[in-house]
Formats: sequence, structure tokens, C-alpha cells
Amino acid sequence: MDPRIREHAETIVEHSVDIQEGDRVVIQLPNEAEDLAVALHECCGERGAMPVYVANSQRASRAYLRAGDDEYETPEHKQALVEQTDVFIVARGGANVSETSDIPPKTNAAYRRALKPIQEERLSKRWCLTQFPTSGHAQLAGMSTEAYENFVWDAVSLDWKAQREFQAEMVERLDDAAEVRIVAGNETDLTFSIAGNRTLNDYGEKNLPGGEVFTAPVADSVEGSVYFDIPLYRQGRKIEDVRLVFENGDVVEHSAESGKELLSEILNTDDGARRIGEFGVGMNRAIDQVTYNMLFDEKMGDTIHLAVGSAYEETVGEDNERNESAEHVDMIVDMSEDSRIELDGEVVQENGTFVFEDE
Amino acid sequence: MDPRIREHAETIVEHSVDIQEGDRVVIQLPNEAEDLAVALHECCGERGAMPVYVANSQRASRAYLRAGDDEYETPEHKQALVEQTDVFIVARGGANVSETSDIPPKTNAAYRRALKPIQEERLSKRWCLTQFPTSGHAQLAGMSTEAYENFVWDAVSLDWKAQREFQAEMVERLDDAAEVRIVAGNETDLTFSIAGNRTLNDYGEKNLPGGEVFTAPVADSVEGSVYFDIPLYRQGRKIEDVRLVFENGDVVEHSAESGKELLSEILNTDDGARRIGEFGVGMNRAIDQVTYNMLFDEKMGDTIHLAVGSAYEETVGEDNERNESAEHVDMIVDMSEDSRIELDGEVVQENGTFVFEDE
Repeated sequence: MDPRIREHAETIVEHSVDIQEGDRVVIQLPNEAEDLAVALHECCGERGAMPVYVANSQRASRAYLRAGDDEYETPEHKQALVEQTDVFIVARGGANVSETSDIPPKTNAAYRRALKPIQEERLSKRWCLTQFPTSGHAQLAGMSTEAYENFVWDAVSLDWKAQREFQAEMVERLDDAAEVRIVAGNETDLTFSIAGNRTLNDYGEKNLPGGEVFTAPVADSVEGSVYFDIPLYRQGRKIEDVRLVFENGDVVEHSAESGKELLSEILNTDDGARRIGEFGVGMNRAIDQVTYNMLFDEKMGDTIHLAVGSAYEETVGEDNERNESAEHVDMIVDMSEDSRIELDGEVVQENGTFVFEDE
Repeated sequence: MDPRIREHAETIVEHSVDIQEGDRVVIQLPNEAEDLAVALHECCGERGAMPVYVANSQRASRAYLRAGDDEYETPEHKQALVEQTDVFIVARGGANVSETSDIPPKTNAAYRRALKPIQEERLSKRWCLTQFPTSGHAQLAGMSTEAYENFVWDAVSLDWKAQREFQAEMVERLDDAAEVRIVAGNETDLTFSIAGNRTLNDYGEKNLPGGEVFTAPVADSVEGSVYFDIPLYRQGRKIEDVRLVFENGDVVEHSAESGKELLSEILNTDDGARRIGEFGVGMNRAIDQVTYNMLFDEKMGDTIHLAVGSAYEETVGEDNERNESAEHVDMIVDMSEDSRIELDGEVVQENGTFVFEDE
């Protein structure tokens, strides 16, 4: 086994979720990541934690969803498992990133609604989402499998302490700010309030790799237009060149050069799916190329991202209402050129450089 | 996908566990059997059942158990999942049948004790244990992978209605009998009572393939000697030429040409592991060769088997005590030559031929 797999497992278990004796753990990995599952089981054994190994098979999910009638209940046995679990370790890394591309979007949306209580419960526990490097994801990134393995394991084994300190500069500024304005090129000029909400520092805990700071906009405060110039893959399909227009926090116009139908389905999932639940700033410069994988792309240096759908509970202040939704879909704006982030009218980043980098 | 995989899934879902709308299902399969998992998920979707896909990875289990300190609690999250599940579908079929061969037997026994409440709960639900044909199991049987695939899928797709009727003849005779005597060669002469216990007809429900009838001896009634001339694999290791001597139901002497240490560990798991929990008669003549896989070998025509360890609850009558144990290890006696089964002093099978086959 590649020794970096064992190191990856140790980073997850020690740094990301801090496994303790007696912890009840769910390890949910695709078959292709069995080596990582083996290493994680070894780490659990060493620490006296109790793993349950759940398969993360997009082939099986697709077969199930395509065979059904789009009516789903919340599976109580899965819910019982999740309720009794302390820690979730989930990895992506199927053989084929287009595996779920022929599940009708409305089927996916219906199933997502049925699973919402389980997903909410999971997010209230300790969890880590990570990536196992497979040929499918390498192909998506246009990289050889070996180059992609290097990319993933380099990003995972960052100096998380140093990264945490760098990001803390931005967290401090966002926590003190009330209004955010994002300007990029000719098409993006968006303002929203973050007053009363909290900004979190993601240094490789819930996401591995980490490398962003993120908060929630006050849901009805978002105004303006945004053009997401970095494509995303969702449910195995590409969504490209998304443009959204907001009034009073709601998406009132939307378009996409590819994946328009899927985008519409996402926005129609529920009321919360038409509002922004997350605003994030990518600060991980070890991630220096787009690989069309949100786990990495949203952390990329010199980017911001916004998610339509649910807000993370920890980011929402007591006096603000949390945006709830069965969806959470991140979309990215390149901020490396002709762009700025303003906080209460003061520029905090311009053309990809933070003001505190000059201090 | 080989169309026999889809047929296998349909036999499980329709014949073995009779999946209904709303059923909460756990599908626990090794990675190598992902095709069967996909087909089972499709069948669940068609019937409105809810699957949870648990990985059955001996590599992961081994890594976990070898890393630990042999002290295990019952994992409450796994227990919660099992309690809320209606149907379990479990398949064997790892890449390497010796995968768990270097787990110390006492480690396995300790873990088995911790899992006992979960295993008992599982056995109280609808369940099916089946086999996916892999190269590892083909190699164990000394067969090519293709010949082994044919063997497995032929055995699975038997005419279960006809098999059920054939076996019912033997069930009737056992239900009417009080004392069983097994005589084979010079070394096996064993008697025990089955008075008050029930005989079950296994025609492909809990085991697929099925093909046996089985009951429980009255635990303290077993007397005599038995030589198991068909080897078995347990925890990835071979146990061969087992000889047991019983007094008042307990094993008082044991030996084995190979695997003696493992056999001793099994018998020392708990008090129940030194008594017989099951007596079965193999009646599936489609299984015409030993493949060193108990799921098939114990069903083979012209054999009987005895299991040390737990008795199946359904086989134990109200007035009899159920033998309880964390173990259940089947061992087989070839009855094709120089042998007979007597019920209350009357021969019911001689040299592999049942008396009701002549009627």
C-alpha cells in the first residue's frame, strides 16, 4: 500500500476528527478507496474506536434511484445508525465521475428531501469529507493518475497550523464586518450582509483538504448579479457559466451555458435552494489548478464561492434566521484578476492579494 | 453485467427474503460483489424497499482487529442499525479466502463475544446469506473462475419448490423422532435426543443456495464419538480431520490433524461452544463436490453436519433449553458409504440413500 494512504488516514483520524477511545465511527468510502478504508480501520483499532464500514457506491445508488417511483421515505434504519454515531469519515473517489449523470434531477431532488433529516443529523456530529485519488477524478481534471495522486496527497498533507494562522487574518476581518461586496469583471457585483453571523476557519477538519474561511449571508440581504466563471460538476453533470440575479435574497433570474435544466431543478428543490446559504473565500494556494471537484476547487487561492441552499448552523448568529434547504450547491468566482472583495466599503482583497499580505 | 447476477438478485429478493414495499434492508457485500449489490439495489428500488449498503471487507476487519487490544464493546451504532432493519442480505466473496488467517483466534473470539447481541438481533429478522463467485473461492475449490461461476449460479437457481418437497419427507420423519443415531465408518457413532425440538426445511431462504433440513439436539443428550472427514475453513484457516468425543452433551476430547489450536479456541469461546447447537442433513444433490465453503458443503447430498455453538431459536422447543454461544461452527461427515442415520432405531438413510427414495 502507498505509504501516503496510511498518512492520509492518520491526518483524518488525528487532525480532522480527533478520534478518541470509544468513539462510534462510520467510514463511508467507495470500493475504489478500500486501501484507505483499511488504513482507517487500523487507526480506529489503535485508538479503541468502533468503525462501521458503509459502502459509498454511486453505481448502486443510481440503480436504486432509477428503478424507483420518486417517492421516498426517510430510511429509519439509516437514521438510527446516524443518530448513534459520533464521527463520520466520508471519501469521494468512484471510478467514473459521470456515474450518476443519468439519474433524473427530480429523482435526485426527491431522494435528497427524504434524506434531509439524516443529513442534518450528520452535520451536527464530528465529520470529515475527503478524497481518494482515482483514475476517474484524474481524468476529470485532465491529469494522469500519478500526477493526480501527487496533487491530492500534497493538498491533504499541508502544514495545517500555518494555514490556520494565515486564514485567521481573514476570519477576524469578516467577523468584524457587516456588509460584503464582491466585484469581478463586468458581470459580478453582489452585496449582502453578514452582520451577526460567524465566520469559520476551515483548516482541514470537516473538509480534507481544507483551506477556506466561510460564513452565511443574512438570507434576505443578497442583492445584485454574479457570474460564476469556474464550472462545476453536480450529480455527474457539468454546469457551466452560471449567472444569477438576486433581489431581497432570492434568485430571480438564472442561466447557464451548460446544465441549465439541472440548475433549475436544484433551485426548485425548496424555498431555501433559491437563497444563498454560504459565502466562502478560497485561501489554499497549494491548490493551484481547477480539477472540477468542489472539495478542492472551492479552497483554491484567489477565489470566492457562494452556495445556494442550506446554511451551516455554526455560521448563523442567534438573531439571524438560518437558511434551510435539502440542497447545498457551491459555485465559484475567480478573483485573481480585475476583482475585489470589500468589507463595509474597505477593500480586503484586490486581484487575488489580501491587504494583510502586504502588512 | 452477467445476466445471472440479476437473476441471483431476483431469487434473493423474491424467493429468499420476500422484499415488500417499505422494507428497511441492509445489503452487506464485499467490494468484489459490487455487481450483485447494484442488481439488489435495482430490485429494492422496483419494490419500494430502502437499502443501506454496508461493506463486507475482510481486509478492513483484519486491520481493525490486529491493531486493537482485544477489548471490545458492543458498537451501539451498529446495534441501532440492526434493530431498525427488517431484512439482511449478506454475501461472501472476498478476493482472498485466507485474508483473516493472521488474526489471533482469541482476538476473533473476543470480538465475536462483543458482537453477539447484534448477531442475535440479526438472526431474529428476515435474512439471507449467499455467495458471490470470486477467483479466491474458485481457487479454494481448485476450480477455474468460470467453472466456479457456473457451479454457484447453478446451485442458486435450483427448482426450490421441488427441493422443498423432497426435503419435507425428511422433516416429517425428524419431527416425529425422539432419538437420532449417526453411524459412519469405524469412528463415528453418535446418539442424541431431538425430542420436543423442531426441524426446519431450508429451501433457499436464509441460505442461498439452501438444501438441508436441520434441528437442534437436546444440548445435554449428545453421547459418543464423531469423525468429521470433510475439512472446513474458518477465519481463513483450514481445520482438518476433526474428532470429537461427547459426554452428557459436552465435548470432552477433541483433536484435529490441522488447525488444532483454532479448534481449541473455538471450543473455549464459552460454555455453549462445547455443545452441539445444530444437527443438519445435506440434501442438495446439485452440490456434487466439496468446495471448502460451508455455505455449499453443508448442503451437499449424502452428508450430515453438526455445529458446535449456538442453536437456532426456531429449532428449539418450548420445553427444551436453547444452547447459547457466540460461536456456531459447522463440521461435516460424509454419509455416502458405510454409514446410516437411525431415528428411534429405524434406518432412515443408508449409504446416502433415504428410505423414502425407494418408496
